Amino acid sequence: MTRETPPCVLGVDPGLLRTGYAVVELRAGRLADAGIIRSSPRASMGVRLRELEEGLEEVFAEHRLELLVIEDLFAHYKHPRTAILMGHARGVVLLAAARRKLDIRSVSATRIKKTLTGNGHASKLQVQKAVMAAFGLPRMPDPPDVADALAAAFYAVSTSRARSLRGSRPPAAASGLER
Amino acid sequence: MTRETPPCVLGVDPGLLRTGYAVVELRAGRLADAGIIRSSPRASMGVRLRELEEGLEEVFAEHRLELLVIEDLFAHYKHPRTAILMGHARGVVLLAAARRKLDIRSVSATRIKKTLTGNGHASKLQVQKAVMAAFGLPRMPDPPDVADALAAAFYAVSTSRARSLRGSRPPAAASGLER
Repeated sequence: MTRETPPCVLGVDPGLLRTGYAVVELRAGRLADAGIIRSSPRASMGVRLRELEEGLEEVFAEHRLELLVIEDLFAHYKHPRTAILMGHARGVVLLAAARRKLDIRSVSATRIKKTLTGNGHASKLQVQKAVMAAFGLPRMPDPPDVADALAAAFYAVSTSRARSLRGSRPPAAASGLER
Repeated sequence: MTRETPPCVLGVDPGLLRTGYAVVELRAGRLADAGIIRSSPRASMGVRLRELEEGLEEVFAEHRLELLVIEDLFAHYKHPRTAILMGHARGVVLLAAARRKLDIRSVSATRIKKTLTGNGHASKLQVQKAVMAAFGLPRMPDPPDVADALAAAFYAVSTSRARSLRGSRPPAAASGLER
């Protein structure tokens, strides 16, 4: 990584079992890296979170990351217990990003989908197809965790382009800093 | 901290705003340290989790910790969103403990309360009074987050004593490793 390495956004879809990530150049919109960080299902929770942290550290070390985009929490969850476990992983992601002094933007899933597909309630399949088209991928990203991470990164790139077209002001209420 | 520093258990009651902790000597049952790690309510989530991590690192540096005891997740939560935020903090606690290679024991609140008070459904006030008596405190621990951390640490000390009285076998199903 040199000084000439272009600054990138990291999109993340956190999960205890699988965390999807996508690294996209902020200016060119070029996809630099994407994948899944997996944890060992039979390991203890502490070890699994440590695996996630180590995987993230590898991604941080390989790219010049300036911004993390992550889905905001929903108002309601069908499976609260699963959501709390996701919260453990999300906490580790936010912690690792804060430690690296990345800007963190938490954006609603609806807004991300709307920016990508024009429909805030697009299905998983629609999101997969849309990111395939947006990044010129040869096949659909699978598992969907990668597609959601790509969608989050796409959101950052497209809103940062909108910003530079319109001047320096960020689009009003387009996203909030994670609280 | 020297080689002669007695090994301790760390009891933790995680929360995004306040995380209670208690350090107790595993053999003597003596209370070595207790308090609250607070995060700045108006800071971003990443910064708040970083504050929690830094507070934990200070506690780790000051004591010879071998074991973390933390309340297990409940089956149901009245406030799922608050629980997910607690999950963020709990993830950071488990991560920090795993990084330090502590043993981690996740124990149900019912079991902790039962060991401490004889009643698995004891009120917050009963728990506060019981830890005050158990550790010979001059006044009630406040906020209750400290009392819950003290109760978790007490659980570890009393079960480890029960173990040494009965031989090397841990009490059956007394606690499970955090999964």
